[in-house]
Amino acid sequence: MYDLLIQNGTIVTVNSEFEIIENGFIAISGDRLERIQPIDPSVPLPAARESIDAAGGIIMPGLINTHTHLPMTLFRGLADDLPLQEWLNQHIFPAEARHIRPETVQAGTRLACAEMLLSGTTCCCDGYFYENDVATAAAELGMRAVLGQGVIDFPAPGVPDPSDNIKAAERHINRWKNASPLIVPSVFCHSPYTCSARTLKRAKALARDAGVLFQIHLAETRAEVDQLRSEHQTSPVDYLNSLNLLDPDTLLVHAVWLSEHDIATIAGTRAAVSHNPESNMKLASGIAPVPALLARNVTIGLGTDGCASNNDLDLFLEMDTAAKLHKASTMDPTVVDARSVLKMATIDGARAIGMADRTGSLEEGKQADVVVLDTRSPHLIPDYNPVSRIVYSARGSDVRDVVIAGQIRVRDRTILQTDLEQILREARELADSINPNEGARR
Amino acid sequence: MYDLLIQNGTIVTVNSEFEIIENGFIAISGDRLERIQPIDPSVPLPAARESIDAAGGIIMPGLINTHTHLPMTLFRGLADDLPLQEWLNQHIFPAEARHIRPETVQAGTRLACAEMLLSGTTCCCDGYFYENDVATAAAELGMRAVLGQGVIDFPAPGVPDPSDNIKAAERHINRWKNASPLIVPSVFCHSPYTCSARTLKRAKALARDAGVLFQIHLAETRAEVDQLRSEHQTSPVDYLNSLNLLDPDTLLVHAVWLSEHDIATIAGTRAAVSHNPESNMKLASGIAPVPALLARNVTIGLGTDGCASNNDLDLFLEMDTAAKLHKASTMDPTVVDARSVLKMATIDGARAIGMADRTGSLEEGKQADVVVLDTRSPHLIPDYNPVSRIVYSARGSDVRDVVIAGQIRVRDRTILQTDLEQILREARELADSINPNEGARR
Repeated sequence: MYDLLIQNGTIVTVNSEFEIIENGFIAISGDRLERIQPIDPSVPLPAARESIDAAGGIIMPGLINTHTHLPMTLFRGLADDLPLQEWLNQHIFPAEARHIRPETVQAGTRLACAEMLLSGTTCCCDGYFYENDVATAAAELGMRAVLGQGVIDFPAPGVPDPSDNIKAAERHINRWKNASPLIVPSVFCHSPYTCSARTLKRAKALARDAGVLFQIHLAETRAEVDQLRSEHQTSPVDYLNSLNLLDPDTLLVHAVWLSEHDIATIAGTRAAVSHNPESNMKLASGIAPVPALLARNVTIGLGTDGCASNNDLDLFLEMDTAAKLHKASTMDPTVVDARSVLKMATIDGARAIGMADRTGSLEEGKQADVVVLDTRSPHLIPDYNPVSRIVYSARGSDVRDVVIAGQIRVRDRTILQTDLEQILREARELADSINPNEGARR
Repeated sequence: MYDLLIQNGTIVTVNSEFEIIENGFIAISGDRLERIQPIDPSVPLPAARESIDAAGGIIMPGLINTHTHLPMTLFRGLADDLPLQEWLNQHIFPAEARHIRPETVQAGTRLACAEMLLSGTTCCCDGYFYENDVATAAAELGMRAVLGQGVIDFPAPGVPDPSDNIKAAERHINRWKNASPLIVPSVFCHSPYTCSARTLKRAKALARDAGVLFQIHLAETRAEVDQLRSEHQTSPVDYLNSLNLLDPDTLLVHAVWLSEHDIATIAGTRAAVSHNPESNMKLASGIAPVPALLARNVTIGLGTDGCASNNDLDLFLEMDTAAKLHKASTMDPTVVDARSVLKMATIDGARAIGMADRTGSLEEGKQADVVVLDTRSPHLIPDYNPVSRIVYSARGSDVRDVVIAGQIRVRDRTILQTDLEQILREARELADSINPNEGARR
């Protein structure tokens, strides 16, 4: 007797053979995937306490968002189409200074988790301040998450004295190390230009000692590269490498401005990359050299970044953009194909954030993080190729059911055990107090 | 007594002042917008036979897709991630030769119209073969459409003898010139490299005489530019200009590879451009110089292109991509802002295809082509700026109601007066016969 059965769908496993089961079922016990196999019409389906009929749709691993700033949902659409420094200094930083506190972090995180659940993301990797409150809200909504307390050598929300920043990160790790089966703590250094070498080394030492992921924004803009070159006579990648920060437990977020030498260094150290194409486009940061990184077998996950620079958390749309962007930038329609992109959004993303042992693919023994797509809409027909449908045609709104750790979190497009209206109301009320200027509004 | 009232929403008019009415109503008589104004709580709403409560959502003009090949929905996902010539010669052209006939054109068009209606597109501009059947199916679903019979100097579906191509286009114009209030005929020349100078001139003369739009794929790929340069010692734009084909009733589709001189020529002749960013990205054609075209006040509409190279007809997603792509390609986050993109997908698109006298904005006296967005989802909250929400956060699936020429075509996300299940079934059955090769399938 299983706890949950999901049947009658095309199972896109994203296992190492990239196996696709035309009409299969998944049997779940507790939080684990127990059986994944084709339906044999001559054999009855196994018994289960509960079942989800995929009705000919697609059964796939939950998506993994490798870079977010969840509470920034509260700033979605606050300021767009602006020069980067004006956007940061006149809009985002002041809004954070005035409005980021434990309650708003929780409210923004709840809004983000609701959006992610409804669009098929079952695991995310976040970096922000008051990360304890991010964790509290994410756990409340049943989201699997790797959550990094922000480290920066400036006064920050919740860490007014920068000399406390490593201690704050350590407290976060200790608080969440074994507190919830879904929440995994991490350290998030903001960047090599906002953290000193000493801070970077201490933060990575803390992460190594605790066995957690070390995240850092890296080589996002040309200005950053110029600054590092001028201050340290080196590239951002070489700089981190000289500090001994690069290893498979380091996640390099953005990695837009890389030389061939940088790419070789990343590949050699087996550090991972979080690719955030929509944010990089919207902020005009540039286009990451994803085909070159893939050619070197660098592990690449996909991320949306925060909502102020995207402005959504829909990984289906991010997959579509990732698949297309690099074709245009390299003038080669064969690069970053649908299968590579789906892997970035699932198993490779899991690998990038240290979660591949438990999630990112549908394989017996792994955690039951499963999404069912409803494919009975005009934009998903015909059905020649399920991977093409997922990457090039589906939107987050095609997600019908979501299971995390064996728990049904979304059923028939409705979030369960959560007062969604209350989450939306709370976010709207906070937005009223955030008070945009008229210029941004119109 | 009005026929239809749409009330309680933020009205984004896209009129010449880009007026936004915070809480307004629209009153419709027959097929026309009669009144558009703020709700005065002290005055009762006007009486109407029927009403749509926008419930605090967004009321906006229906979107305009300025370039499609509607029947190609049947080839959605048939072949992706391939070199252009292999994609065309081994997949798309053979599939067209084998499977395009009047019944399949009608079935594919019905599928396309269902997808467009459900995602808020109320008007499209198409070019294909058997365009009479495209028109029949589009009219059946109540879609407003500018439909161009394809002209090419090769044997084509329905026109086995190329010497009949102009006559076929003329028949199409005469058949549809006054046949339906929604259908406007047009001429669609495939390209300057597949049509002779004589064919191009005859086709444009036919369009001029009939007073209809002349559409042509132009400067889509670098290979085309090289070919024109080698055969005619000129750029595609100069070539068309030398044949006297450029005027405000000519729509240049793609316009990716343009010199400064070409841009000046387009601006000077006031020809319009259809920008298809997702198709240009997926086929690795390149990135059109949209900021430079906008700087010259060239009229630019947005298009999805056919489903084989996108793979959807969702103009909300196309807006998001257009707004972001050019920021990345120019490294300037202020270019192609949300307002410009919304205009491309509405009033400028209408202008580009000769329909601005009747659609593309919410203005009294125009046709009632209206979309209501449901904004009560996490990804559309908060609400700082309705234009930002439309361009950067909304998806086609946020469309709740669609009105074309005063007729409700979609209500509460359901297509009215149409057997959607039958359309989907028919498309699936045809897809079975289209029989993809295994390579494309997996």
